[in-house]
Amino acid sequence: MDLTERLISRELIFKGRMIDVERDVVMLPNGNNTTREVVRHPGAVAVVAIKDGKVILVRQYRYPINSETLEIPAGKLESGEEPVICAQRELREETGYRGSMTHLGTFYTTPGFTDEVMHLFLAKDLIWDPLAADDDEFLGVESIPWEEAVNLAKSGSFIDAKTILGILIAHGRKV
Amino acid sequence: MDLTERLISRELIFKGRMIDVERDVVMLPNGNNTTREVVRHPGAVAVVAIKDGKVILVRQYRYPINSETLEIPAGKLESGEEPVICAQRELREETGYRGSMTHLGTFYTTPGFTDEVMHLFLAKDLIWDPLAADDDEFLGVESIPWEEAVNLAKSGSFIDAKTILGILIAHGRKV
Repeated sequence: MDLTERLISRELIFKGRMIDVERDVVMLPNGNNTTREVVRHPGAVAVVAIKDGKVILVRQYRYPINSETLEIPAGKLESGEEPVICAQRELREETGYRGSMTHLGTFYTTPGFTDEVMHLFLAKDLIWDPLAADDDEFLGVESIPWEEAVNLAKSGSFIDAKTILGILIAHGRKV
Repeated sequence: MDLTERLISRELIFKGRMIDVERDVVMLPNGNNTTREVVRHPGAVAVVAIKDGKVILVRQYRYPINSETLEIPAGKLESGEEPVICAQRELREETGYRGSMTHLGTFYTTPGFTDEVMHLFLAKDLIWDPLAADDDEFLGVESIPWEEAVNLAKSGSFIDAKTILGILIAHGRKV
């Protein structure tokens, strides 16, 4: 069965600094029409960075959820930027380290309403090589032992999906 | 250090069927102002459902990414709906089964731009008790052996974040 939905018409609702929003009328497989609300996103990277048996995490305030979170370093792709280059840049900006990067996977964060794709990397052999961060980012850097991080991910103690996912995928690869 | 960003003014950009979009001016910890683009979402559930040693997955077309995906059953919370009730409803609508539900965790799917929260459940002891699905959802139901699903999640073969996350968390709990 062909499940594809076909574009009938598109309305651009919002062109933002980070996201665009569109509302499309589409034809369903049964021939009926419906609307789909879509958030267009440039894509992102996230990095599981390990130094001396600890994973490096960033503490930050996330405005959409009005909470501080502890997350693996991450950030948005700039226009035309290769994911591995972005991963190195974001790691340097957020933690001060660069590392040898291994691609662990690529996935859609929440494909029901956005095309945001996330490229996940492992960073090892870290060396100190800081890069100035975005001027609207305020971060604290923390490290926790790898086995403790794996247990926190398994027990649901982190509240950020990519952080749980990154740690459990890296663990599954026997990092 | 207090990392909180404080609301200065809010502009409602879009009130949709599934999401709302706002653009807020906020004050950063250093006293400067910036804008934050936020997608408000009602929240969601996802269900790792296991029957006869297999996990039940749904194949569907995801319009925002223009691809078919294989995902664990999931759906949006209705207004005021308890997550466990929503999980049972979505499982029945999408697969025809109901089960005994165990909460595995709650996390934010992508807190950089949305408040979407996802409640993850394990469903076991499944019995056939179907419920009519949403009239704009077209799904195929597939089952794969649990150990194969775990290996696919570890190797990055699924492209949907909650599916990888759900399977790896359930695996970590020795389901």
